Amino acid sequence: MAIIQASFMSEALERQVGFTAIIPEGAGKDGSFEPLPTLYLLAGYSGNGFFWVSHYTVEELSSELRLAIIMPDAENHFYTDDDTFGYGWGRFVGEELVNFTRQVFPLSRRREDTVIGGFSMGGYGALLNGLRYRETFGHIVSVSAAILTGGPEETDRLGPSGDGDRFFRSLFGDPARVSGSHHDPRAQASAALQAGVTPELYMAVGKSDFLRDVNEAFRDHLTAIGYPDFLFEEEEGEHEAAFAEAHLFRGLKRALNGEK
Amino acid sequence: MAIIQASFMSEALERQVGFTAIIPEGAGKDGSFEPLPTLYLLAGYSGNGFFWVSHYTVEELSSELRLAIIMPDAENHFYTDDDTFGYGWGRFVGEELVNFTRQVFPLSRRREDTVIGGFSMGGYGALLNGLRYRETFGHIVSVSAAILTGGPEETDRLGPSGDGDRFFRSLFGDPARVSGSHHDPRAQASAALQAGVTPELYMAVGKSDFLRDVNEAFRDHLTAIGYPDFLFEEEEGEHEAAFAEAHLFRGLKRALNGEK
Amino acid sequence: MAIIQASFMSEALERQVGFTAIIPEGAGKDGSFEPLPTLYLLAGYSGNGFFWVSHYTVEELSSELRLAIIMPDAENHFYTDDDTFGYGWGRFVGEELVNFTRQVFPLSRRREDTVIGGFSMGGYGALLNGLRYRETFGHIVSVSAAILTGGPEETDRLGPSGDGDRFFRSLFGDPARVSGSHHDPRAQASAALQAGVTPELYMAVGKSDFLRDVNEAFRDHLTAIGYPDFLFEEEEGEHEAAFAEAHLFRGLKRALNGEK
Amino acid sequence: MAIIQASFMSEALERQVGFTAIIPEGAGKDGSFEPLPTLYLLAGYSGNGFFWVSHYTVEELSSELRLAIIMPDAENHFYTDDDTFGYGWGRFVGEELVNFTRQVFPLSRRREDTVIGGFSMGGYGALLNGLRYRETFGHIVSVSAAILTGGPEETDRLGPSGDGDRFFRSLFGDPARVSGSHHDPRAQASAALQAGVTPELYMAVGKSDFLRDVNEAFRDHLTAIGYPDFLFEEEEGEHEAAFAEAHLFRGLKRALNGEK
Repeated sequence: MAIIQASFMSEALERQVGFTAIIPEGAGKDGSFEPLPTLYLLAGYSGNGFFWVSHYTVEELSSELRLAIIMPDAENHFYTDDDTFGYGWGRFVGEELVNFTRQVFPLSRRREDTVIGGFSMGGYGALLNGLRYRETFGHIVSVSAAILTGGPEETDRLGPSGDGDRFFRSLFGDPARVSGSHHDPRAQASAALQAGVTPELYMAVGKSDFLRDVNEAFRDHLTAIGYPDFLFEEEEGEHEAAFAEAHLFRGLKRALNGEK
Repeated sequence: MAIIQASFMSEALERQVGFTAIIPEGAGKDGSFEPLPTLYLLAGYSGNGFFWVSHYTVEELSSELRLAIIMPDAENHFYTDDDTFGYGWGRFVGEELVNFTRQVFPLSRRREDTVIGGFSMGGYGALLNGLRYRETFGHIVSVSAAILTGGPEETDRLGPSGDGDRFFRSLFGDPARVSGSHHDPRAQASAALQAGVTPELYMAVGKSDFLRDVNEAFRDHLTAIGYPDFLFEEEEGEHEAAFAEAHLFRGLKRALNGEK
Repeated sequence: MAIIQASFMSEALERQVGFTAIIPEGAGKDGSFEPLPTLYLLAGYSGNGFFWVSHYTVEELSSELRLAIIMPDAENHFYTDDDTFGYGWGRFVGEELVNFTRQVFPLSRRREDTVIGGFSMGGYGALLNGLRYRETFGHIVSVSAAILTGGPEETDRLGPSGDGDRFFRSLFGDPARVSGSHHDPRAQASAALQAGVTPELYMAVGKSDFLRDVNEAFRDHLTAIGYPDFLFEEEEGEHEAAFAEAHLFRGLKRALNGEK
Repeated sequence: MAIIQASFMSEALERQVGFTAIIPEGAGKDGSFEPLPTLYLLAGYSGNGFFWVSHYTVEELSSELRLAIIMPDAENHFYTDDDTFGYGWGRFVGEELVNFTRQVFPLSRRREDTVIGGFSMGGYGALLNGLRYRETFGHIVSVSAAILTGGPEETDRLGPSGDGDRFFRSLFGDPARVSGSHHDPRAQASAALQAGVTPELYMAVGKSDFLRDVNEAFRDHLTAIGYPDFLFEEEEGEHEAAFAEAHLFRGLKRALNGEK
């Protein structure tokens, strides 16, 4: 298993970007070669890719599941193509990062081997881009997702302390119009259903999480539209690393080993 | 000399940020201690801090001048507090990064030992923040500066290919109002003069540089207002690394050793 | 707090060496400056400096105790000046690394602020060098120390699987003569006592640790010679990270805060 | 192109080891996949893998030749299995590192796509291991090689200043017996010829290089035994980076593009 810190020139962001990766050995010593299943793992607000290595046991995740893990630096952009600068953060994680890492590591190109997951801001990013880039990702693992695109009443839970409204408008545009836009995972779920391409979806949220309500609302939407293959788990817990770790693991085992 | 890659939690940006640093030994073996003069070195568009180490001979700069060099990751924000998100990139490099690095490395806190410099976007950042945070920086070394805050006619030379106007507005706000704003180094130069605190200023630009005109315009402004201590050098050369390296070196020797 | 990966040219080892460091902010925003207490933290067999960051919660150690932590790469040399190549690993950690890091970070030069600690091979290295460089280190925190310099009967517990004897001879020389040599912490403890300079010493070992006997033997030696200031703790536990983490923390709180 | 710093657990060295890598994109956007030709690039005495990135233009080498470059940390062991500790540095670079990197990056497993090269100590390592692991490496590019296994009269040019003899004995064993041993590239060249598996070999040395004589002696040996496919270039130059860079480039173009 290699622990890797890497940088490359991103076209979507027009600059050098960093990511952290864990790559288990990809083939037996006999030389047979079997491309690796891969998790694109998205950090929460204020985190970066390295944070997963220094604060979580992602090495164990990787070795237990024989899983490549790609952890991009997050930079607080919610993994969406913003409405001001036009930085293509959605395109970056959903498209460019996948294409790039598939060229520099021996990753499987099969949809069923490709997972997007994350915690908090990263849980939102996993839902949004997993559904939007549904031809790429066969599985979504979202924990404690910061789904704050419901409308104006959610702006104060978003982003920088004290200036949620400004941040919301720069990122998502007019709060009154964000619902249904390309920032809205609900709209993407409906689109996925209509297209007949629905990634298997696992969501978890703690009963004491301050984002419990928006996760439940998203679950209700999935139920209402008849999204075919999802599991929603609500358990004791807060918005914290220990909950994230346990449920990422559970969601990944379900996604990759079929443990239901 | 230590070559360092570091990260810390930025308050201005509300997240983990990275920087690269070169720290020469700070004291003789006898235990005497003399804090280090320091260069905050700002990368151009698309670059990051590590780029200076992989593409320039900054180690030699550091050892020849006994100079600590702090190279933040740039992320294409022009080192200014933007007009949309409110990301405090100016405050970050001019204030937080200086305060932070002075606590984790043995850096001089004296104004005359503290230099801000850069190339292209970083040259602009050095001018803007060197003048704005004039109580902190005693010297500015700007090479091939991307001073594009003159007005609407400059938006197409800025930022992402093909969408300069949108980028300009997100970063600097209304092009018609950017002149005189907190993004405008001319306004900062005038303010510095008025306050009676004027960092020593070195500028260089190549005769074939596509940004020659805006550098000359800035020089003309300095002359017009009677800025006391600046040197403007125009020589054969383009907008490129070799020119940057040679003139950073020259500007730094002037700043630190008094070579005029 | 900065998390740092660094490299520099070592004179003792005649080459580029790497280390990992955690440096908390060293001074308040008012500019007052108080050099940091420092832990030199030595990894066990097969580990390196980065391992502490990826597998232990050293960030919390650092912030809770306002402690700089310097974690050298270990390279399986038991932190001693070997008997073949002459690589000065003892001199490196006990002298050069201390001198170097005191020049590039704002570390206290006071003996009572300087701790050496480690786990397993690193616990041995902390005892050996803490006692040998007793003018530098005021405190030693040794957990599950691999003190295998008692004589020939210990060679099979040392180093590479299957070739302990060869490894022992290359590292320590003739097994029959290692006792009393510069590799022997017992000899160093006696020398420290004779010199009247005795670092405060904390040792811990698990009751199920395969190295329990050699730790007890060292404790008996300390008692026999009347070493003045040491605490030996034996508790439930094995030779493992969880035990190491808990007892490093305890030893450090005792060393720095006087918690007895 | 990704610039990568990585670490993994080496079996040959029984510990975490680091390496630096440059991996160009391995496949077009259409999804076709063509494994990368690879250079294992060995640093000189006192260097490490990162040194190639900070002091050489290896990024350009990689992009111009579409070449993966793997740069291990060297640790002054001359890339040979030493005669004291038994550290398997030859086995590490010739076998384990190749096997490992072929599993975590999309590298060609074909002999003709696999090059070993280096400068000074690394030039020696490239010759020794390229010839020893001749089934793996189709090409050797050796610049200014430190081939110091001729006998006792060479010990003073080896390793640590002032103690060449001790270093020699620890590394290579008895100077009188090193000729013909597994440390001797001449013996490996003869063995390769006998086995009928001879990597294409490029050597260069400067006319003012203090190691010119041992390179010429090796050339004479190759000529004497009738080694089939080698080019020896001797040009103006010293034992220095500029010479190394120019001739690595030349040797690689010859190896990969057939430029003779």
